[in-house]
Amino acid sequence: MNFVSFVVEFKSIAIVGSGAIGTFYGARLALAGGQVRFLMRRDLAAVRAHGIRLIEGEGTRTLSPVAAFGTTEEIGPVDLVFITLKTTANPELARLLPPLLHAGTVVVTLQNGLGNEERVAAIVGAGRVMGGLCYIAANRTAPGEITCRYPGSIVLGELAGPALDRTRAVASRFAAAGVRCTTEDSLAQARWRKLVWNVAFNGLAVAGGGITTDRILASPALAARVRALMDEVAGAARALGHEIPESFIREQITRTPALGAYQPSTLVDFLAGRELELEAIWGEPLRRGQTAGVAMPELGRLYAELKKASQTINR
Amino acid sequence: MNFVSFVVEFKSIAIVGSGAIGTFYGARLALAGGQVRFLMRRDLAAVRAHGIRLIEGEGTRTLSPVAAFGTTEEIGPVDLVFITLKTTANPELARLLPPLLHAGTVVVTLQNGLGNEERVAAIVGAGRVMGGLCYIAANRTAPGEITCRYPGSIVLGELAGPALDRTRAVASRFAAAGVRCTTEDSLAQARWRKLVWNVAFNGLAVAGGGITTDRILASPALAARVRALMDEVAGAARALGHEIPESFIREQITRTPALGAYQPSTLVDFLAGRELELEAIWGEPLRRGQTAGVAMPELGRLYAELKKASQTINR
Repeated sequence: MNFVSFVVEFKSIAIVGSGAIGTFYGARLALAGGQVRFLMRRDLAAVRAHGIRLIEGEGTRTLSPVAAFGTTEEIGPVDLVFITLKTTANPELARLLPPLLHAGTVVVTLQNGLGNEERVAAIVGAGRVMGGLCYIAANRTAPGEITCRYPGSIVLGELAGPALDRTRAVASRFAAAGVRCTTEDSLAQARWRKLVWNVAFNGLAVAGGGITTDRILASPALAARVRALMDEVAGAARALGHEIPESFIREQITRTPALGAYQPSTLVDFLAGRELELEAIWGEPLRRGQTAGVAMPELGRLYAELKKASQTINR
Repeated sequence: MNFVSFVVEFKSIAIVGSGAIGTFYGARLALAGGQVRFLMRRDLAAVRAHGIRLIEGEGTRTLSPVAAFGTTEEIGPVDLVFITLKTTANPELARLLPPLLHAGTVVVTLQNGLGNEERVAAIVGAGRVMGGLCYIAANRTAPGEITCRYPGSIVLGELAGPALDRTRAVASRFAAAGVRCTTEDSLAQARWRKLVWNVAFNGLAVAGGGITTDRILASPALAARVRALMDEVAGAARALGHEIPESFIREQITRTPALGAYQPSTLVDFLAGRELELEAIWGEPLRRGQTAGVAMPELGRLYAELKKASQTINR
């Protein structure tokens, strides 16, 4: 795949995985004039009948009609694919992605954690893969209805290497849809930075028995584990060549009380009885850190605890 | 993985797959002073006892002792890994690669065809993956003995994106070992160009009943298939954004008679009863071409014929 030849004007867009995040971003892009097709499962009938409702601080908007489909074969080839499936559904990608591709299709995974870009590359070829991190608080509050408490921002980057024209072109599409979006020259570094918070707080919210972030910090034992986990993740990231300043770690802790009684996405999943994103957020960072020769006893312990908690869910 | 932070001085090197190509390049790098550790299976005992013999036009050289091992755990972490396994052994990579990695390890697949870089990236992370094409005629003529009739050259590139300092650093290591090595800014384009010849001649040598390249060209029916296959492969490559000039295709045919009664590597494999590299050379290009909307009836037919021939071998 030759980078220079990619069309940077993305006319048709597919959203693979219409949970809260996929539905929110897809609807925003469609409301801004994009030709967006959604792969939907649970809410397919409701959305076909009533459209998508976005409830935000600034008001409520409805997208209707919606181009919603039950299979990617019905969607067909598009210019741009966003993968917003939970990472636990990744084994389905080998089946879901091929019908969406034409020669110049770019595929962006907006999933959590490590290893998703590589997995997608193994299916669609490395030359067309990008990734993004979503800083957003949005929930599905009814069929086809997404309530967004914090629209946040997206950080985009290439699978490997610095941002390109096409990276900036995707960012512009989000900007035109009112979604703040920046590009990074090292997606991997951005992913490791996000993990500093997610590994600790998402993990301890579940391992601590199903508690919000304020209660994690109120417990001296858990607060100590937060700091130890952040140090381990930052240590692994640094060993892999990424910059994680000490001030960055401190901010991850000092900014958390402002979130109040916040439920990280993994806690929301846990309380809803949904599978945890165990490998993308804890397993893969643990393995990559250990590969880089970094001892990660705290992460190893947390991973084991979450694995056990996860088995409770699946039972 | 942050590119800029990679060490570009590669002290320790592992060769994963000590067939003719891995043994040849590894021994060349070791004879030039490199610290090279070989993963060996069949020839492990012979090489430990007698070393490696390289028989070339310019004379015969022996490397002894050889750092040869039966597992990658014994090899341990190295700065640079070359994967020279047959692609049919790729399922083993998930087990073989992790023990070889430290934070800055770069992994280069020198395997045939499409999809290998992506597969390696899914195991080791995209930030450290390179690939290379080998233009060489070398055979194992006895345990630990490689006879090289044409030392040829290597073309190196990054998984995605243009050549970097580290790409050129690997090329320099080969150059210092007397192996001609250049870098490309689009590895995928280089791979597609090599496939123009390989798909046609490697495939028809087997599908034609086990015949050398001169006999393929001597048959009007097979020569017509050569041209049709080359046009299909070039068409797929172009649809995916790569440049394949018409003059390039013509040269692929006009230069072939000079090879004489040449046995492409796939024919050598076939005659030796070894598995064919069916997916990397025919299956993956077929799928990617079809994905890009290119009809490939000739390649589809050849793929089916080779699949049948392959089943004869495995029986």
